[in-house]
Amino acid sequence: MAKRDTYTPDTLLAVAVEVFNQRGYDGTSMEHLSQAAGISKSSIYHHVKGKEELLRRAISRALDGLFAVLEEPAATQGPAIERLEHVTRRVVEVLIAELPYVTLLLRVRGNTATERWAMERRREFDHRVAELLRSAVAEGDLRADVDVRLATRLLFGMVNSIAEWYRPERRTSLSSAEVADGVVHTAFSGLRR
Amino acid sequence: MAKRDTYTPDTLLAVAVEVFNQRGYDGTSMEHLSQAAGISKSSIYHHVKGKEELLRRAISRALDGLFAVLEEPAATQGPAIERLEHVTRRVVEVLIAELPYVTLLLRVRGNTATERWAMERRREFDHRVAELLRSAVAEGDLRADVDVRLATRLLFGMVNSIAEWYRPERRTSLSSAEVADGVVHTAFSGLRR
Repeated sequence: MAKRDTYTPDTLLAVAVEVFNQRGYDGTSMEHLSQAAGISKSSIYHHVKGKEELLRRAISRALDGLFAVLEEPAATQGPAIERLEHVTRRVVEVLIAELPYVTLLLRVRGNTATERWAMERRREFDHRVAELLRSAVAEGDLRADVDVRLATRLLFGMVNSIAEWYRPERRTSLSSAEVADGVVHTAFSGLRR
Repeated sequence: MAKRDTYTPDTLLAVAVEVFNQRGYDGTSMEHLSQAAGISKSSIYHHVKGKEELLRRAISRALDGLFAVLEEPAATQGPAIERLEHVTRRVVEVLIAELPYVTLLLRVRGNTATERWAMERRREFDHRVAELLRSAVAEGDLRADVDVRLATRLLFGMVNSIAEWYRPERRTSLSSAEVADGVVHTAFSGLRR
């Protein structure tokens, strides 16, 4: 019972995101959330209007982290190739720091208004990164023989796959910086020596 | 009614895979398959024992295509880096040629014996590719500063993501060879000029 008083909007959100990622957003009921949080449904309604508000908050947290990267000084000044490598590195770091939230964002498929909004914002983010790639090609720093849309997709394919296998709790896990280095080296310099 | 006679094990399989990919294997009933195929459940049972047999056949088709790549002459002779690039290119081509089957394989999560077998075979395939990477590092052709397991995961992250966005029916689609080139260039030589 003491547990009930310890909930804040943030801790409730953390529990909800875990359940959404396990069961899928569609497959999660308020009853599931109530059981996972160990508090009554009415206590949850004290914090939020319903599960869609929890989804919106969780997705916002992921998106805020990702879009903030685009505003960092190193993402806005200098040659596009440097900005692109900086953005790639930082996106990997945000993905790992906010792993459950970004995982949820990546899995959203779009039946509700909130899900469609999430997908729209994600596309917007992808376009911003594609623009950086385009600029880097124009500045002569990226190879011109790989289609920009394809390169953007392969880059995100690599980055987003991290959400599927990275498990921070494993003691053998690489650090966030090591994974980010690996992605930047692979995507931009290639694995060949 | 004429439709009923046109079914062969292969065409029934194609319909089943489409439904599995749309609804998820767990979410698909024999009733759904019967509706999608436009034939009765008993007609389906004439071809197969049940939906798990359809899953096994579909997954086998994907796995046979992928494992066959490892037996090709260019995958078994010569420097490991050349074999690795050949395998990467061919895996992309098989993924695109067998898109619905490989998509199903990649989405399988493992509640039934067939799903667990599929995941085990997939891991085996990943290990074979990781071995090629390790050999290429040992032969001095791949950079040694990227962890082999990480590199393998990023490579498959890039390759497997193709199943999420490649739509062969779009007239603007890149060809299988163009996508395969893009992957090999990105992963091995890097996007930098």
